[in-house]
Amino acid sequence: MEEVKTLNKETVATEFQIIQDEICKSLEELDGYAKFEEDHWERTGGGGGRTRIIQNGDLIEKGGVNFSAVHGDLPDVLLKEFGVDKATFFATGVSIVLHPESPLVPIIHMNIRYFDMEGGPKWFGGGIDLTPHYIDNDQARVFHQDLQEVCDRFDESYHPKFKKWADDYFYNPHRDETRGVGGIFFDRLDEKENVTLEDRYEFVKEVGRTFIPAYSKQVTKRNESYTGQQKQWQLLRRGRYVEFNLVYDRGTKFGLQTGGRIESILMSLPKLASWEYDFKTESGSAEQQTLDGLKKGIDWLSV
Amino acid sequence: MEEVKTLNKETVATEFQIIQDEICKSLEELDGYAKFEEDHWERTGGGGGRTRIIQNGDLIEKGGVNFSAVHGDLPDVLLKEFGVDKATFFATGVSIVLHPESPLVPIIHMNIRYFDMEGGPKWFGGGIDLTPHYIDNDQARVFHQDLQEVCDRFDESYHPKFKKWADDYFYNPHRDETRGVGGIFFDRLDEKENVTLEDRYEFVKEVGRTFIPAYSKQVTKRNESYTGQQKQWQLLRRGRYVEFNLVYDRGTKFGLQTGGRIESILMSLPKLASWEYDFKTESGSAEQQTLDGLKKGIDWLSV
Repeated sequence: MEEVKTLNKETVATEFQIIQDEICKSLEELDGYAKFEEDHWERTGGGGGRTRIIQNGDLIEKGGVNFSAVHGDLPDVLLKEFGVDKATFFATGVSIVLHPESPLVPIIHMNIRYFDMEGGPKWFGGGIDLTPHYIDNDQARVFHQDLQEVCDRFDESYHPKFKKWADDYFYNPHRDETRGVGGIFFDRLDEKENVTLEDRYEFVKEVGRTFIPAYSKQVTKRNESYTGQQKQWQLLRRGRYVEFNLVYDRGTKFGLQTGGRIESILMSLPKLASWEYDFKTESGSAEQQTLDGLKKGIDWLSV
Repeated sequence: MEEVKTLNKETVATEFQIIQDEICKSLEELDGYAKFEEDHWERTGGGGGRTRIIQNGDLIEKGGVNFSAVHGDLPDVLLKEFGVDKATFFATGVSIVLHPESPLVPIIHMNIRYFDMEGGPKWFGGGIDLTPHYIDNDQARVFHQDLQEVCDRFDESYHPKFKKWADDYFYNPHRDETRGVGGIFFDRLDEKENVTLEDRYEFVKEVGRTFIPAYSKQVTKRNESYTGQQKQWQLLRRGRYVEFNLVYDRGTKFGLQTGGRIESILMSLPKLASWEYDFKTESGSAEQQTLDGLKKGIDWLSV
């Protein structure tokens, strides 16, 4: 591991912007047609962000790669959570959601973030998870192998722990379905004995830089033809994605509660989604096989 | 007003089923093509319901008219709210959401409900609200006149109070938009001095029986041709409807938290909805005029 410079907020924010730049450049190359459009925005309480949206591409129908770095007085909901009356905070992160055009290519999400309360806790968080409209066991295995590989470079306990955390987090209880085949999730990595905050920082940077190589392996069916029935199934699965993001996703809820920039937060929603009353899959169909895979605790490394 | 028989749970549930029957029959006539399909369901903890769905009609693309009557141990979230350790409850209601095929016809919602905690509070609640994709001031005025008329038959203080309640309730704070042009909403009408629970019951029955005549006046543009752009705007407005229902609607949240029948709860979601990043309406357009009308406190009786 390279030598780490002293960790400070500006360093992290700058590095996250570099990661955003790298990912956007690579995604444009991968898409081959659409280009990102960028909106700079400022937050009333302090800070702002660079929202980048790619639409109507050859690969990506709608996607966002957002960077933000905000600071100011800690919002009331967090004051309550931390049991303090007043505090200032700094938070920076990169968030990605990509909805592909083809139902044969999965939706992907990635987030890395740093939170720093003045005189209080500081931590890194993040995760990557994959939501195939049609689960392909080989591709799911490769995805989890890629995540295991980056985790193992830091600590062999990371992957099993963060994989389970993703299973538990990316879950729609009212459907009793995981959002997809999971991935890794780590909500709050503080420093602790033998693990410095700098170590955490190295880890989330590597997670960020795993995104492009991992996603690139998931888009191999982008040019395969698909049926109208498969497209309709994609829209239904996107409906479930909307349900998760609006009902449960903490980042979305936090953003809505604290007056974040709505268009940046809700870039995660797809261009088109569908709900059909009591839709039933046919026994033995690819759709049913996918539903069977939307369960916690599947060892995707061994499928 | 007719003489009221002694109010009991079975009487209310039976009457609500009759109202569901009347509404479904009238909606089939109004649609002229599609028929309701019915699912009977039972709740593990006690009771059940009749979910009726109409789809792909001449007027209605997707709609539901649900009846339920459930009972059992009060769910934990409500025990907490009422500050009791253990209680049994009975709740019955009729809930309607209709998504029309045409963007020139509004979405409509109606709900009437009765809640009865054993040895505790008993109340009626409900409301009707209208969500035009394109606001037509004349039609909005007629809608509010119809609601005012039924309210005034009971108490002239009802309409202004319940109209404001609807403005406050059917509101997406993160968009700073009301869901539509509002209507009436009353979350909890207990008995009080000079108003018996039977009086409340008479009122909600009348609200239920106002639904069909009021909605019938709102579908006059059903056969007018519309453009692809108008259809796209409809899908975006439906996206906002999804946001309200999944993020804020209390009935939906309560249902998801307490393990209600998901397909009955989420029948309110449209067949197709759309999200576009940072969509901007053109100044002076019909779409912009509609956004200008999605505000609290507009006196629709005088537009």
